[in-house]
Amino acid sequence: MPEPEPGPGQVLIRVAGCGLCRSDLTMRQMPKPVGERLGWRMPFTLGHETAGWVAATGPGVTGLDVGAPVALTPADSCGTCWFCLRGLDNSCPAALTGRGYGRDGGLAEFVLTGLRGVLPLAGLDPRHAGPLTDAGATAYHAVRRALPRIAPGGTVAVLGAGGLGAFAVQFLRVLTAARVVAVDIDPARLAYAESVGAHEVQTSLDRKRLDAVLDFVGTDATIAGGLAALRPGGAFGLIGSAGGRLERPWFGSLPRDGEVYTFQGSTIADAQEVIALAEAGLIRNQVDEFAFEKAAEAYERLAAGTLTGRAVVLL
Amino acid sequence: MPEPEPGPGQVLIRVAGCGLCRSDLTMRQMPKPVGERLGWRMPFTLGHETAGWVAATGPGVTGLDVGAPVALTPADSCGTCWFCLRGLDNSCPAALTGRGYGRDGGLAEFVLTGLRGVLPLAGLDPRHAGPLTDAGATAYHAVRRALPRIAPGGTVAVLGAGGLGAFAVQFLRVLTAARVVAVDIDPARLAYAESVGAHEVQTSLDRKRLDAVLDFVGTDATIAGGLAALRPGGAFGLIGSAGGRLERPWFGSLPRDGEVYTFQGSTIADAQEVIALAEAGLIRNQVDEFAFEKAAEAYERLAAGTLTGRAVVLL
Amino acid sequence: MPEPEPGPGQVLIRVAGCGLCRSDLTMRQMPKPVGERLGWRMPFTLGHETAGWVAATGPGVTGLDVGAPVALTPADSCGTCWFCLRGLDNSCPAALTGRGYGRDGGLAEFVLTGLRGVLPLAGLDPRHAGPLTDAGATAYHAVRRALPRIAPGGTVAVLGAGGLGAFAVQFLRVLTAARVVAVDIDPARLAYAESVGAHEVQTSLDRKRLDAVLDFVGTDATIAGGLAALRPGGAFGLIGSAGGRLERPWFGSLPRDGEVYTFQGSTIADAQEVIALAEAGLIRNQVDEFAFEKAAEAYERLAAGTLTGRAVVLL
Amino acid sequence: MPEPEPGPGQVLIRVAGCGLCRSDLTMRQMPKPVGERLGWRMPFTLGHETAGWVAATGPGVTGLDVGAPVALTPADSCGTCWFCLRGLDNSCPAALTGRGYGRDGGLAEFVLTGLRGVLPLAGLDPRHAGPLTDAGATAYHAVRRALPRIAPGGTVAVLGAGGLGAFAVQFLRVLTAARVVAVDIDPARLAYAESVGAHEVQTSLDRKRLDAVLDFVGTDATIAGGLAALRPGGAFGLIGSAGGRLERPWFGSLPRDGEVYTFQGSTIADAQEVIALAEAGLIRNQVDEFAFEKAAEAYERLAAGTLTGRAVVLL
Repeated sequence: MPEPEPGPGQVLIRVAGCGLCRSDLTMRQMPKPVGERLGWRMPFTLGHETAGWVAATGPGVTGLDVGAPVALTPADSCGTCWFCLRGLDNSCPAALTGRGYGRDGGLAEFVLTGLRGVLPLAGLDPRHAGPLTDAGATAYHAVRRALPRIAPGGTVAVLGAGGLGAFAVQFLRVLTAARVVAVDIDPARLAYAESVGAHEVQTSLDRKRLDAVLDFVGTDATIAGGLAALRPGGAFGLIGSAGGRLERPWFGSLPRDGEVYTFQGSTIADAQEVIALAEAGLIRNQVDEFAFEKAAEAYERLAAGTLTGRAVVLL
Repeated sequence: MPEPEPGPGQVLIRVAGCGLCRSDLTMRQMPKPVGERLGWRMPFTLGHETAGWVAATGPGVTGLDVGAPVALTPADSCGTCWFCLRGLDNSCPAALTGRGYGRDGGLAEFVLTGLRGVLPLAGLDPRHAGPLTDAGATAYHAVRRALPRIAPGGTVAVLGAGGLGAFAVQFLRVLTAARVVAVDIDPARLAYAESVGAHEVQTSLDRKRLDAVLDFVGTDATIAGGLAALRPGGAFGLIGSAGGRLERPWFGSLPRDGEVYTFQGSTIADAQEVIALAEAGLIRNQVDEFAFEKAAEAYERLAAGTLTGRAVVLL
Repeated sequence: MPEPEPGPGQVLIRVAGCGLCRSDLTMRQMPKPVGERLGWRMPFTLGHETAGWVAATGPGVTGLDVGAPVALTPADSCGTCWFCLRGLDNSCPAALTGRGYGRDGGLAEFVLTGLRGVLPLAGLDPRHAGPLTDAGATAYHAVRRALPRIAPGGTVAVLGAGGLGAFAVQFLRVLTAARVVAVDIDPARLAYAESVGAHEVQTSLDRKRLDAVLDFVGTDATIAGGLAALRPGGAFGLIGSAGGRLERPWFGSLPRDGEVYTFQGSTIADAQEVIALAEAGLIRNQVDEFAFEKAAEAYERLAAGTLTGRAVVLL
Repeated sequence: MPEPEPGPGQVLIRVAGCGLCRSDLTMRQMPKPVGERLGWRMPFTLGHETAGWVAATGPGVTGLDVGAPVALTPADSCGTCWFCLRGLDNSCPAALTGRGYGRDGGLAEFVLTGLRGVLPLAGLDPRHAGPLTDAGATAYHAVRRALPRIAPGGTVAVLGAGGLGAFAVQFLRVLTAARVVAVDIDPARLAYAESVGAHEVQTSLDRKRLDAVLDFVGTDATIAGGLAALRPGGAFGLIGSAGGRLERPWFGSLPRDGEVYTFQGSTIADAQEVIALAEAGLIRNQVDEFAFEKAAEAYERLAAGTLTGRAVVLL
């Protein structure tokens, strides 16, 4: 394939590494009409956790030198809508497509893209930085949203200690003075959560009067259990998409004077702050490297749950 | 009955008027063991929307002159717990009982009480002020909680335009620059909502992209409809206790990057601010007066839904 | 002059009207080297309160139809820096130049510009809308910043009831339930402030225990007087650039547990919300029209203080 | 002296230890009329950093067992005013006197007091805990106020690394992910600041673009230098009472879109959270013990600046 040439306001990224995400598994099986109803250009190259180097810049682009290492946020927000103007760019209508979902992403030698969400890396290895912009930034968004409810002397539970949950444990440790309890059924995940700072690990949530519960699972059971464990005024963040409901009446079951929130994705500012934390050495980003030829195997292991870190395909 | 004598730190209130609340209807039928499990002293005099005049003050009480008009908040918070110290006194454990629920309330000549929640009235008639501290303050709490999400140019829906909903319409008008839509099936309520400032009235919610929905009903239908009408980042406040659920999975159904909150009661500061708004003439507090001998009739009409304002029993 | 042609990502605006600002008077006298030290392209066409119609759009621009009425914010922020990504674009380094300061502005038939800050007008006359984006948005920024400190029952003072101050009075009325006191030495300004909603007007500030003071003058006297009038926890906003200081030690003189803030300009979101308020009929934007040939006279009257509204030059 | 007997709502504390504060030195020299103008009962026993054990409780006091270790906040707020009801009790008018300023404090065998600000200790030694409620809580208040402006990747400077400043360094480390720079002219203080977590120590501030500057000195030089070092939107907290001013015009010199704040004292909630942090082992409270007979010597060393920790007099 010939190297694409960036147009005005565009930048061409030579990919170093691209993280794999569970949502890729879903998108691989998505029928073309379903994607097209979302406004997606079908088919497209997967990969929305991309980092690499600037290969070329188009007319009007300043401040990005060729060769500079950068990471790309998944979303491709517009920069001018009501949401983008308030730093809420994960709600931008244009963010319904992005690099690796609805248009070509990072599992390729090059990504041609606009400037929004192209984030300079000061000291991080671009082969590994990709997951920070999605798995990291989504967990960060969840934690940041709950911060006003988390007091010194309080306790927070993270339900699900996989890729996102383990990031959340770390963000809670560096941004709060609360005790952090990680809950998972997988001993390896709990061990990792402990190694990155969880004060307690549990196979089922055994705490009450929590300031916040961040639910990275999202089943009926985690929703009911998490809500019941909150103190008055606590926060429940639902990030996991397992399709859970709450069987009981809401009034009386939701946290009294507390709040429930959910979201998808994260803002560019979230990704920027996660990168800052990683560059300061305050969080660990554990990855399993796969050569590009092994991408299929990486997806298989992701589906089977046999990875220990986030899978990163090297380009 | 002899006039009770206030002990240290106590004040005796001569009641002027006491508002009736739907929750009184429930409490009238509550079996003694149920109340006792809540830590309530059974039986007790109803009435948690009380205002009157200071009749006597106990040792150590300063700043309250005999004869001064005051309103009483329903809750009887402790003033020293973690919640009270942060202005979150509606979450105080001691607020599980209060004047008129679990201890004697305002449907009596006198109320003997501690100082917390005794709020001076500068210009309001104490025969009518009681409902401001409960119906008013609860609606105010709901509105105040949603304010950060309500922008100029935005729209807010109030589901249920009864006593609380009509207060909420008014608070939204004085505290925001949003359009206010009131939704109810009762034409008389809609007419009243319009008269106190609703920009639009509807018998079923016919709007999208709302900044906030305040649900004073709380059925399956209002919860599902209200959530579906929010913009990304909007707020859904559940105040109505009709026992509704949400049948769909939460992830994807709750407002994206928005928030859901619920609560019971309000803080003393809420009541204080509602009184300030009423004293400034910015809100209307419509009441239907009943003599004490007609209290039973007032409750009947409350149950039957044939009142136009808040029922106030004059003592 | 030939009509300029918009490049990629650019839009050409046919100007309808352009507001004049006191800062123009300063810029007209600015020596070329002073401007160049600021990074400004000297000389340039004045006018940073511009509105008009889309005349043409460059490649890659979507969502703006030719003929559509729009207003332009003064600043030309980058959209991708740390500040812009958080909705703090008035702190963007690129905002040190803008349309009408450091590059060509609105006192011309056409303005050629990037897309950021091009705000659609739904119902406002583009001949008059320009001042909303600067005089209006700056006053709005001041009010918005103080909102968390302004409670129902509180009082706010606006020092200086000129163009910005009169906007501030209006924003305070629509966004808060506080009493608003306007202070000025000019009776005409006080009369106008009263006509747009000030509860009280005074020739010198005669109030204490204020929730907030917004100082659109900024002399030694207004700073000292404003600070002294605040309640504990109150906010003092310094917007006026008259060069005032505070002669006393700060500790003990600044508002106890309060805050002092200052800023220049406003964000695109501010301008967007001001336009929304004007479109909803909630604020008045009083302008004095001048033909383009009378621009010099308009500046003279602005300098002499004999205008009653904001001067708008029609193109 | 006979042991005092607690009245209704009172508690008698047997003092274990009491911290000494620079403000004591001022109060020791205060002429009686000056104190009386403040509403103080003159003379009084000094000592506003008190901790000990509950010796007896008066009628109506529940939840405090005799023998339980407790710390006392300095201030004696009312619990019912506008400020107290919002958790802003350091602005309570009644807080103008307190235990050890205007009424008898902790340099005595017993303190007789109301219940507000009597804080249970779960694991801390009451002989040493006193300074947490004043030196600790004041520094905490300063840090908490600046938190919304401190982002991951940002930097904060603490000017003055004495008792309060060293606490501030620790709170910044446990509550933020920012770099912390301590500035002082005393090498011993800088060494201590480094030992409790400062990333950098400097004898004069040599940094720019700071998120926040906390000035525990408060001279002309620290105010001017601190303000000049902020990024747009940064926060400047003035805690030190050295009487400094700013010689330049404010507009253009204060942090652009930033904020300046000052205060005295702290809230009961602040002290509660500092105690929680100490109980969790997250902060160090270095004290120098003095027998009661050596209190005069302790004050001399405090005045001379030859202490290494906070002086605590053991009772």
